[in-house]
Amino acid sequence: MTDTQTAQIESEAPAATHAAETPEALIARLAKAGRAAQAQLARMTTAQKGAALIAAAEALRAAETDILAANDKDMAAGAERGLSGALLDRLKLDTKRLAGIADAVAQVAALPDPVGQVIDASSRPNGLALSRVRVPIGLIGIIYESRPNVTADAAALCLASGNAALLRGGTEAVHSNRAIMAAFQRGLAKAGVPAEAVQLIPTQDRAAVGAMLTAQGLIDMIVPRGGKSLVERVQNDARVPVLAHLDGICHTYLHASADVAMARSIVLNAKLRRTGICGSMETLLIDAAFPAAQAVVADLLDAGCEIRGDARARALDPRILPASDADWDTEYLDAILSVAIVDGLDAALAHIDAHSSRHTDAIVTSDDAVAEEFLTRVDSAIVMVNASSQFADGGEFGLGAEIGIATGRLHARGPVALEGLTTYKWLVRGTGQTRP
Amino acid sequence: MTDTQTAQIESEAPAATHAAETPEALIARLAKAGRAAQAQLARMTTAQKGAALIAAAEALRAAETDILAANDKDMAAGAERGLSGALLDRLKLDTKRLAGIADAVAQVAALPDPVGQVIDASSRPNGLALSRVRVPIGLIGIIYESRPNVTADAAALCLASGNAALLRGGTEAVHSNRAIMAAFQRGLAKAGVPAEAVQLIPTQDRAAVGAMLTAQGLIDMIVPRGGKSLVERVQNDARVPVLAHLDGICHTYLHASADVAMARSIVLNAKLRRTGICGSMETLLIDAAFPAAQAVVADLLDAGCEIRGDARARALDPRILPASDADWDTEYLDAILSVAIVDGLDAALAHIDAHSSRHTDAIVTSDDAVAEEFLTRVDSAIVMVNASSQFADGGEFGLGAEIGIATGRLHARGPVALEGLTTYKWLVRGTGQTRP
Repeated sequence: MTDTQTAQIESEAPAATHAAETPEALIARLAKAGRAAQAQLARMTTAQKGAALIAAAEALRAAETDILAANDKDMAAGAERGLSGALLDRLKLDTKRLAGIADAVAQVAALPDPVGQVIDASSRPNGLALSRVRVPIGLIGIIYESRPNVTADAAALCLASGNAALLRGGTEAVHSNRAIMAAFQRGLAKAGVPAEAVQLIPTQDRAAVGAMLTAQGLIDMIVPRGGKSLVERVQNDARVPVLAHLDGICHTYLHASADVAMARSIVLNAKLRRTGICGSMETLLIDAAFPAAQAVVADLLDAGCEIRGDARARALDPRILPASDADWDTEYLDAILSVAIVDGLDAALAHIDAHSSRHTDAIVTSDDAVAEEFLTRVDSAIVMVNASSQFADGGEFGLGAEIGIATGRLHARGPVALEGLTTYKWLVRGTGQTRP
Repeated sequence: MTDTQTAQIESEAPAATHAAETPEALIARLAKAGRAAQAQLARMTTAQKGAALIAAAEALRAAETDILAANDKDMAAGAERGLSGALLDRLKLDTKRLAGIADAVAQVAALPDPVGQVIDASSRPNGLALSRVRVPIGLIGIIYESRPNVTADAAALCLASGNAALLRGGTEAVHSNRAIMAAFQRGLAKAGVPAEAVQLIPTQDRAAVGAMLTAQGLIDMIVPRGGKSLVERVQNDARVPVLAHLDGICHTYLHASADVAMARSIVLNAKLRRTGICGSMETLLIDAAFPAAQAVVADLLDAGCEIRGDARARALDPRILPASDADWDTEYLDAILSVAIVDGLDAALAHIDAHSSRHTDAIVTSDDAVAEEFLTRVDSAIVMVNASSQFADGGEFGLGAEIGIATGRLHARGPVALEGLTTYKWLVRGTGQTRP
C-alpha cells in the first residue's frame, strides 16, 4: 500500500481503521468479527432474527434526520463531481424513500426462514436415517455501487438467512451508507444480535476490495451488485466463490401463431415499461410467418423506441435503422431495440443460443407444443411463455425480495433471495452402525 | 510453450493434437466440440442416455484385451519410474477390476435421471405459473490422478446427468485412460450419442490443465479428483467454478453418555476399517466423563494404531505418544490417530470448530438432546450420530455413485452424484401478462 492510500483510509475512516493496518489485515479483522457474530446468529430462532429486523427497521426510521443529512453530503459531493442526473437520482434519499427502505427491511422479517428446512430425507437398509437440512452459508461479502438502499436490503437478507454480511459500498454513497449501517446496527444491538453480524468496510481504499476477493476461508461468498465492469472485475479477481449477475440480453420471439393483440402488448411492455432493468427486452425476433410484424414495430417506433433491424426487418418500416453485428450482443438498457426476422422456431432458437446472455428469454405463441419446446430448448435462467420479460424479478416471482439475479449456472440461478443464501448439511442418525 | 513441451505433446498424442496448436486453442477446440455434443445430449431421453451407458459398459467389456495391454504399458512405466506399491496397486487393472468398472457404468444407467425434475412450482396472483426444473450444467472438466476407473466413472456420471465431460487424467495412467475412453466412445457412438460428449485431453502437457482452469464460458465447472496439492492448485488457478474436495479431518466425540460397546465398535471401525479414505476418523475426542476411555484406546493400540494424545490422553496408556499442535490439523490417512480428552459438549464443539475440515464429524451418545445439539451446532458437510464416519460415501448414502465429496459450501455439499451435476432454470407460463 502506498502512503497516499494510507492517508486516504485515515482521512475517510479515522475511528474504525487502525493506523498501519494493511487492507488484508483490515478484511481479516472484520471477517473474523463477522464470523464470530454469525456463529451466534446461526443459533437464533426465526422469531429472534425477525425481531432484530423489526428493530433495525425502527432504528432506520428513527435515524431519518442523520441519514438524510448524510445523504445531503453525498448529493453535494456528487453534484460537485459532476455525476449525471440519473446517478444523482439513484443516490437521492428523502423521507419517502427512507421509509421504503425501512419497510423493506421489516418485510424481510415476514419471509419464511429457510434455515432448518429439511430438503429431503431417506433411510438406508442398514437403519441409518439421512436428511439434508438448510444452513446459512456463513459470511457473505457484498460489493455494490451507488444505491444506498442496498446497504439495508442486503444486510436484511443476509441476516434473515442466518448469514453475517460484510458490505463494501460505492464512494459516491459513503456517508449515506455509514449512516444507514449505524442505524441498522443500533437496531440489531437493541434486539440482542451482535452488531458485527452486518458490517460496512470503513474505508473506500480500492485495495480493500481486492482483499475481500482473495479472503478464502474468511468470506464464503461474494455478491457483486453493480455495472458490468464491477462484476467482471470481481469475477476475474475473486478466489472466493462469486454469485454474479452479468448482462440481461433478453429476447422475445413472436411465433407465427402468436395472438396479435397479446404480442403487441407484451412487446411494448417488455421493451418500454422500464428500459434500464436487466429483464427488459433487448432483441425482438419476429417470425416471418407472424402476420402483424408491421404493427408491432410501428407501436414501438410511435412510442419513441429506436429500432435497429436486419434487412428484412428494415423492410417493415422506413424508420428502422440498420443493425450492426454488435447490436445482437448489446444490452442497451435504453429505448433501443434490435429486431430480426426469423424463419421458424429453430431459427429463433439458434439466434437465442448464439446471442442470449442466458438471463431471460420469452416466446409469444398460441401453440402449446411450440411453447413447451421453447421452454425445454432455451437454456436461460428464466424462460417465459406469453409474458413480459420485465417480470424477471424476485419480488414478482414471490420470493419477497432478491439479492440479485444470478446469471451463472452453479448454486443458484435467476432471482436469488433467502434460499440462495443458504447451503445444506447432511444429518446422519444411527444406532451404532459400523461400515462392513 | 517451449519446443520441449511441443515435442512432448507430439510424441504422446500424435494423432489428436494439431502440430502448432497452443494449449488454449486445444482446450477451446475440444470444449466447443463437447458443448455441441452436450446440446444434443441435453435433449435425449432417460432411456436414450441409459442405452448409451449400457453400450459403453459393453464396449468396455469387449475391449478387455486392448485395455489390459494398455494398462500393462502403464504398469511397466510406473515400475520403471519407481512408483510405490500402493500407487501401482491403484493403477493396476485386471479382468475382475475391469468388469467392476464396466458394471459401475451400467449401474449408473439405472439411477433416477435428475434432468427434468421439477424442484418446486407456484402460481402468482396475476396468473403466472412458475416452476424450477433441473437441467444439466453443461460441460464438466474433470482433472484426476492415478486411478484409471475415474475415466469411466466420471464420464458415466456426466453423461447420465446430460452433461458433456472433458477429462484430464494422470500421466501414470495415460495408456489405460486412452484405451478406456476409446472403448467408452465406441459404445456411445453405437447408441447414437456423439462420441464428443465425453473426451479425454489428448496431451499430458501441464499447460493444458492451466488452459482448462481458465476456460470461462467454455467449461462450466471443474471437478478435481486427487490429492491435496492437485486440488489446491486447481482452486488457486481456476477462473471456472470448482467443485472441490479437500481434506477429511474427521472427528468422533465420545460423549459421557455413550454406550461403551457401541463407542468401542464405532471407534475401531471409523479409524481402522480403511485408513486411506477421506471419511476415516483422524481425531478422537473423549469426554472426561466417559467411563471407558482406557478400553477404547487399548482397542486401537492393540490393533496396531499409533495414538498421539494430549497430556490427559497420554495418562490412559503408556503407549500413547505426545501430540504436537500440528497433529490436530493433520489428515493422516494412515493407522495414526490424535486423541484429546475434553470436558463436555461445548469443549468438544470448540475443538471441532477449530480443527475440523468440515467434511464429516460424529458423536456417540445415548442422550437425544445432546445428539440434536451436536447435529445443529457442528457446521460440517456431514454430521453423524452413533455411526462410523466411514459411511461418508455417495454409495452408502444411496446416491448410487459419487463424483466426489464436496467440502466447499456452495452448489453442493458432501457426496455429489447426479443431482449435484445439474442446475435449474425457471419456467414461467403466462397468458399474456404484462408488468404494471
